[in-house]
Amino acid sequence: MAETGLQLRTRISDDNTLSVWLEEVPVPQPGPDEVLVEVGAAPINPSDLFLLFGPADMSRARTSGSAARPVLSADIPPQAMASVQARLGQALPAGNEGAGKVIAAGDSAAAQALLGKTVGVFGGEMFAQYRCVNVHTCLELNEETSAEEGASCFVNPMTALCMVETLKVEGHTALVHTAAASNLGQMLNRLCQRDTIPLVNIVRKPEQETLLRDQGASHVVNSEADDFKPQLQAALSETGATLAFDAIGGGKLASHILTAMEAAAASEMSEYNRYGSTTHKQLYIYGVLDPGPTLLSRNFGFAWGMGGWLLPIFLQKIGMQRGAELRARVADEIKTTFASHYTRRISLAEMLDPEVVVAYNRRATGEKYLVLPQA
Amino acid sequence: MAETGLQLRTRISDDNTLSVWLEEVPVPQPGPDEVLVEVGAAPINPSDLFLLFGPADMSRARTSGSAARPVLSADIPPQAMASVQARLGQALPAGNEGAGKVIAAGDSAAAQALLGKTVGVFGGEMFAQYRCVNVHTCLELNEETSAEEGASCFVNPMTALCMVETLKVEGHTALVHTAAASNLGQMLNRLCQRDTIPLVNIVRKPEQETLLRDQGASHVVNSEADDFKPQLQAALSETGATLAFDAIGGGKLASHILTAMEAAAASEMSEYNRYGSTTHKQLYIYGVLDPGPTLLSRNFGFAWGMGGWLLPIFLQKIGMQRGAELRARVADEIKTTFASHYTRRISLAEMLDPEVVVAYNRRATGEKYLVLPQA
Repeated sequence: MAETGLQLRTRISDDNTLSVWLEEVPVPQPGPDEVLVEVGAAPINPSDLFLLFGPADMSRARTSGSAARPVLSADIPPQAMASVQARLGQALPAGNEGAGKVIAAGDSAAAQALLGKTVGVFGGEMFAQYRCVNVHTCLELNEETSAEEGASCFVNPMTALCMVETLKVEGHTALVHTAAASNLGQMLNRLCQRDTIPLVNIVRKPEQETLLRDQGASHVVNSEADDFKPQLQAALSETGATLAFDAIGGGKLASHILTAMEAAAASEMSEYNRYGSTTHKQLYIYGVLDPGPTLLSRNFGFAWGMGGWLLPIFLQKIGMQRGAELRARVADEIKTTFASHYTRRISLAEMLDPEVVVAYNRRATGEKYLVLPQA
Repeated sequence: MAETGLQLRTRISDDNTLSVWLEEVPVPQPGPDEVLVEVGAAPINPSDLFLLFGPADMSRARTSGSAARPVLSADIPPQAMASVQARLGQALPAGNEGAGKVIAAGDSAAAQALLGKTVGVFGGEMFAQYRCVNVHTCLELNEETSAEEGASCFVNPMTALCMVETLKVEGHTALVHTAAASNLGQMLNRLCQRDTIPLVNIVRKPEQETLLRDQGASHVVNSEADDFKPQLQAALSETGATLAFDAIGGGKLASHILTAMEAAAASEMSEYNRYGSTTHKQLYIYGVLDPGPTLLSRNFGFAWGMGGWLLPIFLQKIGMQRGAELRARVADEIKTTFASHYTRRISLAEMLDPEVVVAYNRRATGEKYLVLPQA
């Protein structure tokens, strides 16, 4: 077994500079309840990008060092430094999830049971050749599942499943999703069809409408279309959706969704109520595609809620047992409902190539990069 | 007993005009479970104003008719007409709450038990000389309580009590309140002192700081002061408040509060987390002092929630039994914790005087008008 392996590190220094490089670190020995995973594949998720690059201007990034061990540097606008005070000077690993083969295991029965198996891991620090983790952060994949197939078995599948779980826990019956043509959105579309939950997909381009309809979506509305508001309200009236998950965050879209939900609810009311309907409308912001401020018009009565939504916090709410049930479903449907598709496969060193960075940092809808740390 | 009585009516017509007048209506006979109340006093709450005047320009209101039966008219900006479509042409009564003597009662034991008693009523339509209501909307006042003393026994007392009840139900330990020098705010300040719940009062003027401190408030911060943000964060760190009730709604204040809560929570964290703290921060908007859009910077992690908060919806959540317990407490403390103070007492006809309208429509902090329908 190798004594050292490469691990991606990112650091923001007080000279307003971001550095990202590959550090050669010792391969750890697993403790009793731990396993050592040879990382075969790790996706770059939107949720990884802020840790990787912070508020740095990646369009002007530059590299030094060798081709095998490049060092990527970029500048941070001075006014953005306040937002990263908490991480200043720290050499942070990154990579929310990935999959690989267990090549060493601690003494516990749970750890030994995974030896030689391919596992998905949601442990952070996955942009690395080796990762030692507690068995509880592993999902044992079925025998015919490869590391590449299982690499994205946590973030998107569990997010989609937990959105539906939120719907059930909070008593809604239909769902709205924005940026719905994303990898996650396509997955949610498959999941809702399989579980027969009405889903209103909001996209921003005509070709995304086509894409989702071709994948069986019944309700797709384009927020850039002139008739967006009436189309949205019609879809909400048809489905009765009172819960939305918003990946965008900034701007007026969240407000438009709540307004349309209220209009759909008010059209069922028999008499005027100046406080609006009593139908509770809920919107969760789970992404930051638009980091600008959220603008709420508040013309949707008083029965509404909005909030941040983060997978780990929600998983804590539903508890270990329910979380394990959801993970087991992901393993069973990883090649169907929860399959991910990748635009490009790259090595750890290629992750630091400025041109490649610009491409995966665009967060273009439907694009997704897979890192192969052993390549 | 009189056969007719005066009742205030408000109507918005499709010629962009608001009319408010006193209608002479028959005094109703109470049904089995109803009582007839001779309304002695009814406060003008901020929550009454939107129904009374809608979006009309009251600074240019005019009257016609006689001094005893005036008709108040005002114009509505054309672009605001869309927001009042649901009430067009309807002659709506108004007045959320009030108190008076029960002068007739239905046959049921519950109704008969109230005959001759002074009751508080939360039934709408209280800007009237007589009001027939179901016994369930009545709060029997103690014998030594007058109609004037009991007129505001629902909206402010129950709102203050239910804010504290929200804190308990949702597991918070300290509270933030904006527009804290209002009648409601002063009441909440008394209630929190009595129940030893730390309260952070946010006001907008130095004299309001003094007012609340003179009433025993420990934490008062002025949102117009240069050092507002550090002062707020210090108060939040000291109290651990993670729940806020905001009467203002529009602008950036809600965002500032959530940001300061997150900063207080983050200062307790041992390591950097790019998703922010896991401390849940909650803000409820219960008023519309600023009807403009709410601007959220979302620099407070993902563990946050915001929502509308409306007393009747909350009362439904906690149920009849708990609601009755809270109402009983109001009756017992109506002259102390839940006492209201009025700037001026006016008749029904004076409510329609343009100069008086401008005064009570200002929603000036701490000012409150009491209508005496029998005057």
